[in-house]
Amino acid sequence: MAESQAQLALEQNMARKGTRKWLNEIIFGTETSVGRRFDIFLIWAILISVVLVVLVSIEYVRVRFGGILFFWEWFFTGLFTIEYLLRIYCAINRRSYIFSFYGIVDFITVLPSYLALAFTGASYLMVIRLLRVLRIFRILKLARYLQDSNMLVRSLWQARRRILIFYAVVLVLCTIFGSVMFLVEGPRHGFTSIPKSVYWTIVTITTVGYGDLTPQTIIGQAIAALTMLIGYSIIVVPTGIVSAELAAEIFKGKITVNPCHNCGRSGHDADADFCKVCGYKLNEVK
Amino acid sequence: MAESQAQLALEQNMARKGTRKWLNEIIFGTETSVGRRFDIFLIWAILISVVLVVLVSIEYVRVRFGGILFFWEWFFTGLFTIEYLLRIYCAINRRSYIFSFYGIVDFITVLPSYLALAFTGASYLMVIRLLRVLRIFRILKLARYLQDSNMLVRSLWQARRRILIFYAVVLVLCTIFGSVMFLVEGPRHGFTSIPKSVYWTIVTITTVGYGDLTPQTIIGQAIAALTMLIGYSIIVVPTGIVSAELAAEIFKGKITVNPCHNCGRSGHDADADFCKVCGYKLNEVK
Amino acid sequence: MAESQAQLALEQNMARKGTRKWLNEIIFGTETSVGRRFDIFLIWAILISVVLVVLVSIEYVRVRFGGILFFWEWFFTGLFTIEYLLRIYCAINRRSYIFSFYGIVDFITVLPSYLALAFTGASYLMVIRLLRVLRIFRILKLARYLQDSNMLVRSLWQARRRILIFYAVVLVLCTIFGSVMFLVEGPRHGFTSIPKSVYWTIVTITTVGYGDLTPQTIIGQAIAALTMLIGYSIIVVPTGIVSAELAAEIFKGKITVNPCHNCGRSGHDADADFCKVCGYKLNEVK
Amino acid sequence: MAESQAQLALEQNMARKGTRKWLNEIIFGTETSVGRRFDIFLIWAILISVVLVVLVSIEYVRVRFGGILFFWEWFFTGLFTIEYLLRIYCAINRRSYIFSFYGIVDFITVLPSYLALAFTGASYLMVIRLLRVLRIFRILKLARYLQDSNMLVRSLWQARRRILIFYAVVLVLCTIFGSVMFLVEGPRHGFTSIPKSVYWTIVTITTVGYGDLTPQTIIGQAIAALTMLIGYSIIVVPTGIVSAELAAEIFKGKITVNPCHNCGRSGHDADADFCKVCGYKLNEVK
Repeated sequence: MAESQAQLALEQNMARKGTRKWLNEIIFGTETSVGRRFDIFLIWAILISVVLVVLVSIEYVRVRFGGILFFWEWFFTGLFTIEYLLRIYCAINRRSYIFSFYGIVDFITVLPSYLALAFTGASYLMVIRLLRVLRIFRILKLARYLQDSNMLVRSLWQARRRILIFYAVVLVLCTIFGSVMFLVEGPRHGFTSIPKSVYWTIVTITTVGYGDLTPQTIIGQAIAALTMLIGYSIIVVPTGIVSAELAAEIFKGKITVNPCHNCGRSGHDADADFCKVCGYKLNEVK
Repeated sequence: MAESQAQLALEQNMARKGTRKWLNEIIFGTETSVGRRFDIFLIWAILISVVLVVLVSIEYVRVRFGGILFFWEWFFTGLFTIEYLLRIYCAINRRSYIFSFYGIVDFITVLPSYLALAFTGASYLMVIRLLRVLRIFRILKLARYLQDSNMLVRSLWQARRRILIFYAVVLVLCTIFGSVMFLVEGPRHGFTSIPKSVYWTIVTITTVGYGDLTPQTIIGQAIAALTMLIGYSIIVVPTGIVSAELAAEIFKGKITVNPCHNCGRSGHDADADFCKVCGYKLNEVK
Repeated sequence: MAESQAQLALEQNMARKGTRKWLNEIIFGTETSVGRRFDIFLIWAILISVVLVVLVSIEYVRVRFGGILFFWEWFFTGLFTIEYLLRIYCAINRRSYIFSFYGIVDFITVLPSYLALAFTGASYLMVIRLLRVLRIFRILKLARYLQDSNMLVRSLWQARRRILIFYAVVLVLCTIFGSVMFLVEGPRHGFTSIPKSVYWTIVTITTVGYGDLTPQTIIGQAIAALTMLIGYSIIVVPTGIVSAELAAEIFKGKITVNPCHNCGRSGHDADADFCKVCGYKLNEVK
Repeated sequence: MAESQAQLALEQNMARKGTRKWLNEIIFGTETSVGRRFDIFLIWAILISVVLVVLVSIEYVRVRFGGILFFWEWFFTGLFTIEYLLRIYCAINRRSYIFSFYGIVDFITVLPSYLALAFTGASYLMVIRLLRVLRIFRILKLARYLQDSNMLVRSLWQARRRILIFYAVVLVLCTIFGSVMFLVEGPRHGFTSIPKSVYWTIVTITTVGYGDLTPQTIIGQAIAALTMLIGYSIIVVPTGIVSAELAAEIFKGKITVNPCHNCGRSGHDADADFCKVCGYKLNEVK
């Protein structure tokens, strides 16, 4: 009797374990067709919920369809809450999931709607809107599904130092040019402070050029013209860096793989006769 | 008698077939000088009819030269209608032509003027203008005559995945930045909804910067500056991708494989007469 | 006596010929130090005369220093007139100089000031200004002195077909997008005609974005956003083309010259053992 | 006694020399950990003092926290004064330090605050602000710590001639286009002088497009569209130049020459252990 009870407990335990493993494969896995379908379903749910938040922000829509949007808003909140709880339940290592990057993102994207309940009252609409917008970060989950971006990411990574130096130089230049413009144009022409002048410099140097702040004096316009020409030359540098890195990546990818039959090492040049690792004679490649 | 009649029918049939074949060579073919001249004539007719539509849209011109422009409008409509019918008549496989990409474009570009007849009345001018403008798509036919764009198209095609990922990332970023700006600036400063904020973000990130919507608060301006610098770095990525792909294409074009028949070494320059490794005479390459 | 007279005529003729040859070396030549100094003097004269035209256009300066600027204006006009006449006098083939590109430019840049004399009267100032400005084209002469731009020019030349195709595509797209915007926004929002809408499209697609014409409707803003993203991707293509061509040029320049001691042909690859033209054994290069 | 006095003087001298050498290592050196920590401390002090200048320029902050900011302003001025004097004191060659680039920058960045004392009176605030802003150039000292920018600098240096030619062409084009726009649009539409038109041309050609000056006439808009398309094609050239130079630099860095001691073939990959032509063991490189 005790034995069969222990057996039952064990079986239940195993069944539970089985359920957890089965859920884990569906929710975290991407190898099985069920797991893949779950992920695709999740992407669609995320995209639709983001579209809802965007629609609610339009006054015309909010006034007319506020009720139904409110319902779906909570439907998706419920869905993502259940998903989050299931993820915790079936994670192999719960602690490491909860504090992992995606664990935190999952938590943050569920939170806003619930927080909105606490802050009812006069400023209700304002606050709930702010909290809802934060839910848009849920879209960041999409990054999980972008796996072909490896080459781009590697190119950017290899160029990270040069890009950082570049940004340091741009910021130094913007501060100097901004200060000079602040002195030349002054508050009379809208350049009310150095931060605002730096804002103008960035607007100019990136060639955005809103036109809300424009130099009015001749000297100011001359400095602005200089800022544009110099600034433009500098702002194009990252293009050059990324282009060059990407070109190197793409060329590397086009070199024949040409594997060695002795040591299995591939990546030899097209004109190599011997393996560069073990010195073994390579087979002829076309 | 019956024989000669059958003979006549056969001859007529053959003559008709001959006429169809002859028309087909003129209209669809580009090998014979007549066929080429027909194509060039067609391009000019298309360009002139587009210029007419453009001119009619200018009020000053419409008021003064409306009548004569109306006549030529219908002259070209007639011309393209006859051309379309002839294309159907002389196509080798009529069904496959009608439902091919160019068959549909040919049909759509003929349609508008006729549809304009049906919608007479008060809103006549508005509608006919709209329908006429659609005729501009006829210009797409020009694509037929651009055959040197192979390298460009191949470069873009090889980069299609990376470009798609890039656009996905840009849209995600625009939505997030747009939502943040919507919260920070709010309807008071013109950011009336998230879609409008996303519009502002795209205007900013592509460095267009109309200035119809500009951040007014200090925080908004700081986020805008960040958007520009980050956005700019991202928007230049496709330049890098296309540059790198084009470089690969151009380099490939400059290297002929050109193997040596003595030592098997390949990779000689296109203008090499002797193998650079063993000095053996290379075969002529085109 | 007759003999000595004939001798004198011959000598005078020779002297004249000598003077012409001497002048030709100074004015057209760039090999002798006198010829080079003449060219540098000419560049300075051109630059100063252009600065004068620019200064005269400023009302503040024209009112105060009109007289003295007028004098120098005519001083330089006289100088360039004498230079032009001397060029004709000492040109080896006068006809071919006068109708050469630079001959025509020299003539056109001298003309305006003289034409200004004929058109005195009420509209004097307006006309003379217009004619003066044309003198700025004299600066085009500077092109003569830019000889290091070979690589750039060659890169652009090799890319000319692709660049032309690119412009054709851009113009087709601008016309289509312009027409669509004309229909969507209409004259009420400033899009008064298709040419104006095409102007807006070019302003947008090149990311200039003045903001004098902006879409007001939601559909218009969506199309504008699309125009920016698509347009931007297209407008960066020439960068890619020119980058790739330049990269090919620069790489070619970096390949070791490595000349053959038998046939003198250089430009062999760094790993070549035999001359690719004559098959002769190449010397070892470091 | 005299001996011991001489000894003492010598010892004092040596001690002084020791102190100078020790200070020199701290202030100028970057090899010892103390020297490095001093440099890092200095960078932070520079950044904080720049932030102070920026904050003081904001009226809101100046009114409220003027006193405390004034104190820190003078604290940093004192700090940098002491640092400057110590640099002079411990420099190995004082004269060459004072007149070196960094010596002059150090002097100029200390000066403004002291000069501000002399110019008290009505225009006090204006002047002191101007002088304070000059202190921002102290940030240029940061360049000392950017040593990884070698590749970028070398790429720019190798492209210096081509970049200069490019700027010459841009300026010539801007002057010509500016003059034409001045004539076409004229003072009525804001193009009051050629310099202002050139300013507009630069704003347009760099795709900044403020919109403070826009063409109003149809011809003006057509020329503007042309300016954008041509101008854009030209302005992207430096991107191409820098990209190509960077690509060459990056590729060079990825290929080690690494010659084989058996067959003399070079150009092996950095990770190759055996010659790809003869299979011989390669020497270790670095």
